[in-house]
Amino acid sequence: MSSDDLAVGLVGAAVAVALDEDLGVLGDITSLATIPEAALGIGKFVARTEGVLAGTAVTAEVYRQLDADVTVTWRVEDGDVLGVGDEFGRVSGRMRSILGGERTALNFLCHLSGVATQTRQFVEAAGGRVRILDTRKTLPGLRALEKAAVRAGGGYNHRASLSDALLIKDNHLVGLGVDKAVQAASDRWPGRTVEVECERPQQVAEAVEAGAGIVMLDNMSPALSGSITLETVKGYADAGPDLISTSAITQSAPAVDLGLDVEGDT
Amino acid sequence: MSSDDLAVGLVGAAVAVALDEDLGVLGDITSLATIPEAALGIGKFVARTEGVLAGTAVTAEVYRQLDADVTVTWRVEDGDVLGVGDEFGRVSGRMRSILGGERTALNFLCHLSGVATQTRQFVEAAGGRVRILDTRKTLPGLRALEKAAVRAGGGYNHRASLSDALLIKDNHLVGLGVDKAVQAASDRWPGRTVEVECERPQQVAEAVEAGAGIVMLDNMSPALSGSITLETVKGYADAGPDLISTSAITQSAPAVDLGLDVEGDT
Amino acid sequence: MSSDDLAVGLVGAAVAVALDEDLGVLGDITSLATIPEAALGIGKFVARTEGVLAGTAVTAEVYRQLDADVTVTWRVEDGDVLGVGDEFGRVSGRMRSILGGERTALNFLCHLSGVATQTRQFVEAAGGRVRILDTRKTLPGLRALEKAAVRAGGGYNHRASLSDALLIKDNHLVGLGVDKAVQAASDRWPGRTVEVECERPQQVAEAVEAGAGIVMLDNMSPALSGSITLETVKGYADAGPDLISTSAITQSAPAVDLGLDVEGDT
Amino acid sequence: MSSDDLAVGLVGAAVAVALDEDLGVLGDITSLATIPEAALGIGKFVARTEGVLAGTAVTAEVYRQLDADVTVTWRVEDGDVLGVGDEFGRVSGRMRSILGGERTALNFLCHLSGVATQTRQFVEAAGGRVRILDTRKTLPGLRALEKAAVRAGGGYNHRASLSDALLIKDNHLVGLGVDKAVQAASDRWPGRTVEVECERPQQVAEAVEAGAGIVMLDNMSPALSGSITLETVKGYADAGPDLISTSAITQSAPAVDLGLDVEGDT
Amino acid sequence: MSSDDLAVGLVGAAVAVALDEDLGVLGDITSLATIPEAALGIGKFVARTEGVLAGTAVTAEVYRQLDADVTVTWRVEDGDVLGVGDEFGRVSGRMRSILGGERTALNFLCHLSGVATQTRQFVEAAGGRVRILDTRKTLPGLRALEKAAVRAGGGYNHRASLSDALLIKDNHLVGLGVDKAVQAASDRWPGRTVEVECERPQQVAEAVEAGAGIVMLDNMSPALSGSITLETVKGYADAGPDLISTSAITQSAPAVDLGLDVEGDT
Amino acid sequence: MSSDDLAVGLVGAAVAVALDEDLGVLGDITSLATIPEAALGIGKFVARTEGVLAGTAVTAEVYRQLDADVTVTWRVEDGDVLGVGDEFGRVSGRMRSILGGERTALNFLCHLSGVATQTRQFVEAAGGRVRILDTRKTLPGLRALEKAAVRAGGGYNHRASLSDALLIKDNHLVGLGVDKAVQAASDRWPGRTVEVECERPQQVAEAVEAGAGIVMLDNMSPALSGSITLETVKGYADAGPDLISTSAITQSAPAVDLGLDVEGDT
Repeated sequence: MSSDDLAVGLVGAAVAVALDEDLGVLGDITSLATIPEAALGIGKFVARTEGVLAGTAVTAEVYRQLDADVTVTWRVEDGDVLGVGDEFGRVSGRMRSILGGERTALNFLCHLSGVATQTRQFVEAAGGRVRILDTRKTLPGLRALEKAAVRAGGGYNHRASLSDALLIKDNHLVGLGVDKAVQAASDRWPGRTVEVECERPQQVAEAVEAGAGIVMLDNMSPALSGSITLETVKGYADAGPDLISTSAITQSAPAVDLGLDVEGDT
Repeated sequence: MSSDDLAVGLVGAAVAVALDEDLGVLGDITSLATIPEAALGIGKFVARTEGVLAGTAVTAEVYRQLDADVTVTWRVEDGDVLGVGDEFGRVSGRMRSILGGERTALNFLCHLSGVATQTRQFVEAAGGRVRILDTRKTLPGLRALEKAAVRAGGGYNHRASLSDALLIKDNHLVGLGVDKAVQAASDRWPGRTVEVECERPQQVAEAVEAGAGIVMLDNMSPALSGSITLETVKGYADAGPDLISTSAITQSAPAVDLGLDVEGDT
Repeated sequence: MSSDDLAVGLVGAAVAVALDEDLGVLGDITSLATIPEAALGIGKFVARTEGVLAGTAVTAEVYRQLDADVTVTWRVEDGDVLGVGDEFGRVSGRMRSILGGERTALNFLCHLSGVATQTRQFVEAAGGRVRILDTRKTLPGLRALEKAAVRAGGGYNHRASLSDALLIKDNHLVGLGVDKAVQAASDRWPGRTVEVECERPQQVAEAVEAGAGIVMLDNMSPALSGSITLETVKGYADAGPDLISTSAITQSAPAVDLGLDVEGDT
Repeated sequence: MSSDDLAVGLVGAAVAVALDEDLGVLGDITSLATIPEAALGIGKFVARTEGVLAGTAVTAEVYRQLDADVTVTWRVEDGDVLGVGDEFGRVSGRMRSILGGERTALNFLCHLSGVATQTRQFVEAAGGRVRILDTRKTLPGLRALEKAAVRAGGGYNHRASLSDALLIKDNHLVGLGVDKAVQAASDRWPGRTVEVECERPQQVAEAVEAGAGIVMLDNMSPALSGSITLETVKGYADAGPDLISTSAITQSAPAVDLGLDVEGDT
Repeated sequence: MSSDDLAVGLVGAAVAVALDEDLGVLGDITSLATIPEAALGIGKFVARTEGVLAGTAVTAEVYRQLDADVTVTWRVEDGDVLGVGDEFGRVSGRMRSILGGERTALNFLCHLSGVATQTRQFVEAAGGRVRILDTRKTLPGLRALEKAAVRAGGGYNHRASLSDALLIKDNHLVGLGVDKAVQAASDRWPGRTVEVECERPQQVAEAVEAGAGIVMLDNMSPALSGSITLETVKGYADAGPDLISTSAITQSAPAVDLGLDVEGDT
Repeated sequence: MSSDDLAVGLVGAAVAVALDEDLGVLGDITSLATIPEAALGIGKFVARTEGVLAGTAVTAEVYRQLDADVTVTWRVEDGDVLGVGDEFGRVSGRMRSILGGERTALNFLCHLSGVATQTRQFVEAAGGRVRILDTRKTLPGLRALEKAAVRAGGGYNHRASLSDALLIKDNHLVGLGVDKAVQAASDRWPGRTVEVECERPQQVAEAVEAGAGIVMLDNMSPALSGSITLETVKGYADAGPDLISTSAITQSAPAVDLGLDVEGDT
């Protein structure tokens, strides 16, 4: 089991939507025509390329919703590294059900493993001490799952919604200085850490003085230009921050190529 | 308007989920503390990198659901090319509403424009005559929007669900040869084209003879190895197919960097 | 406006489901290919056969959800009689929207007008004094709309759900006599009328004596056999009941043939 | 099991809506007052008239959602013929649960069996070689289930949604001839069969020449007038088409009279 | 089991919403950090103050949705009296699941037991013969559960929705006298009892004469002023009505203090 | 407008559920029988007892969903004090719509104003410097609205969900000491304040030393016994904490008696 399997309860709706959009009104018309109703089968989840696995819990939920008699088992768990050709899980039951859920399951697995893999690469490229955080730049409807995949890849979660942390950006300073904004935020929401995103060095001192608990430096490292990539992250990390936050691990993570090898169960 | 704005009706649920996950129980607590309730503002959608735009209709829906008094206008439409620094749209109204929907709107726009951009690059790399098709390898819950973005990028849509076309793959041939499978499919679903995915050359002849309307060659071009990428697509195109189908344009399309520059409306 | 237009609020979900199942992932692909995005049109709702109209409010909701810029107007209202060829309403706006909602709108209109028409025929066949009531034998998901259509046709509504009235049938008498059952029901739910379905004459006396407020005779008229049909209803009515309840007006009402004549708006 | 039991996953929402509308806020108040909580019972599904069965999977889902401890078993399967008095299935468990789901279950079963029965009658009336297809004239919210019932009755499914096939009608020809419309459709959606509905003989030749894969003749048979009915279908079939499509099998199919005979389980 | 466990099917949606609002995007982040994934535990539901229990079925549903492997058992049932310190139920399984559902479960239990307790107090204060009824003054989204809790506390349910009973108030008499209103109501909805809320003594006679089945006296007892409270209810009861209806038992019922004592299961 | 009107977007689902449970299948049957369809009216929201207003935004949403042509206006805003007899808002439009939404609107208003009023009383009883916080002990499905009502009453929000803050309680210390638990929490979720609930004085020192940002004392004040009430809160406040958190302001807040005086609009 993965340490995120509580998420199963949360992602039922995401799975229902995904199955709906793939099964449509008639269901899997090709299988209805070519696969006998009683045929049983086994599907082996296999990695076609290397990667870090994520998404086992939501995959199990796909098959649970589609056909409660299908069995899904895993050889490894979220966060484990997959080598090319590794069989990492298995689904068995009615062949029509296995095929009917195949693409939905793989769409979750390939994307979420992509997020975990990209995260792991940033963690390794950054070289250890610093922590890699995600952002709210996630794909609509998939935030809970992507944030869990970031954790599976060795990363950490920055705030999950606008509701769960105070983060003052330039847009909040339209009529206020940093000090007034920090004061307003901690007055309104006592007991919460105030984080300030600073785009200029002088803002940092202001923010700290105003009582900000976290200062986020936005694209400000002097010797580096451009955004945070696998190539530049080490340079940022060497500048000594505690945390580096990047959207690259969620929004643009390439899918890992995972497949399902299906055979009849005779 | 975009040619896909009918999709607005379809994507209301996707927008509702996305707003829910970003606004949480308390809403945008930072803005509640720092932005006066009556403050008005303007947000300019600006491209930070080049790309092909997609997602204008769903963005309008984000603001419609959040605050019906916010106005969204576009200078260009889905499918148009954006240069660095181009302002392509504008949102105006209550500042809290503009900021409250910013991330949700951009998450849709950046991803969908990424899909359109990647599609355009494949279309151009393939060199004209051949058509680039998508697959069902889409991100769960976003299929309708991604398929529209593929069209915005100059691509075409392969089947949208298991329900809407017959596509016989190796997995359907467990107990049947290609000819029997094609026969079974066209018997069960009269009037529908049968497409056959062939992994070996001899299957092609079988499929055509059995009455397949479309033959899809899976990773079979003799002189090329590996999957379809921006580098290899021209080689595949030169082999003369009518259509090339690739998951690269949806599942692994990097986000386009689009932003919202916000200022007070005084 | 119809006297049932409050139902619009209630039927939003039914309309959303119906549009979803008809528009699918890609929407109306034929119109996307053949109708210019900017084309405007007018659709005239026309009766191909005679009938009693019902479903105007839900039809308006179909177009409101699909495209808020489409205008729907009615010349008549629910409960009015349509002659062959009568134009009874009109929809105008973007041609793609008119066509995209056509089938969903007509599916509601034709079925609900069928219910209203069938009800009217029973009312007329019964000959006046007696009232025709519906049952809970309705089509799943359409009960609110069908019950409104019964009213439009001149009928009355029997209970709308298991929650809203006491109706003791044979199945409730497993361990109790009629008197005990009526007593238990009025004890548990004080202030509610108890209705008893009687299959044998002696039950009627028992029920009345036990305090039943309504007695329903189930297939019991001595001179008549079979269920209530347009042919037999007069006979039942002549026996003198206040109310006659029949599932024929909802569950098996044939659709009225209504169409939409569409033309370009130039 | 039925060959359509995959549909269970798809119809969960339809069942939830149907149970909601029948149980209301208080549930089955009559049973709460008259049936002891611990009472067990058996319900036998019995045919009161002849018909072809459909809807077993959705019936099982009704009881699964209402009370997972209730057991539903079937003696026959979807598509089998029921004679008067035949017991075709059984539900056992808590008496209150059996009665609480009775009407919802029967509403699905009676309507869907009506669709299957009507389909079977058209198939038999048409006399064999020709295939009977449904249309999109289905009851809102019930399309997936009705299309499955059509298959159970020996019919075939025409397109399931606007999204899954190209069908050019007169309304799409506002500014285009048939040839241009066929061309536009196959250009926009490569690889899909284009079907053309023809109302005049000369359109047929045009459509075929333009590359239409299917030609649908709309009310055009010279010797016959009126629409397709059980009386006229043989005449149409004798004209030699491959497929006959009719809304009569879904939109106006009379319910089959099926009941549930309940007794205490002692 | 409680006599209201049929309600489980109905309240699935209420539970899903409640879990969603408490678990948010990341779930229980404190437990994820401090409780090992494999840790098992037992939670004992204990009364910290006296009260009447209600809500066992919805509590079981909370854990069923969160983690189907968690077991919930009850020592008593809805309607039983709890003394201070009484252990009345137990939940066992994965510690993270127990803690993740704790607050949601208790929020249901404490409020619903508050409703049952308040109801019991009114029943006892009224002194026996008269029956205590609830109203539609319930908390939004919780009506089914609150009405069941009223029954658990020994009370009875007045109408559950606007749809399920006729109740004429002053607002319905804008253009009609009581007699006309009663007539209109019983004409439109034959077979239903008409209840009239009377604010002045002369209305009572009118209502009875017009055929009202129930007369509700609104704040009209001559010797008493103010609304119905635990202190005044006996006075009202002594005036001899059959039923006393009060919103105090739902809308303002103080929560009963129930807790969950958790310990590791070693 | 209230500072919480962004919540309108969030509470659409809560309103839909509440209207559903009150309108049922048939809608407001009494008004359908007694109020002419075209009748217009005005409803004045009036305070029958004193209180602090909350819930204006959700009330507007009730009428928006029910009938978009109804107009709702407010004379005051959330957080303002209402005196007995004060008219604080008005709804005008079709009489049937006004009455159809009356109870749902008032159920929200009376409860949420009860929360705001109770909060105000605690704020005043505590005497100024200390801040009154809510808890997660809210009514299921109403958390966002109740938390906004707490703010309207002058209170502050403690964490809104398990996902948005770290709060270590005894239950998290099964295998860990306070120091290890604080360390584990801040390691796993960097940048977040760790709050520790202490039940014994020695835990406070441990928690502070371990790096806890907030220490919550649970029922620990030496000279006081029992929980926090309007009578005891001043004593707790005098002990000098920054924040006092209490469930009394949400879970057990008595409803404020607000009504709607309706008259015909002639």
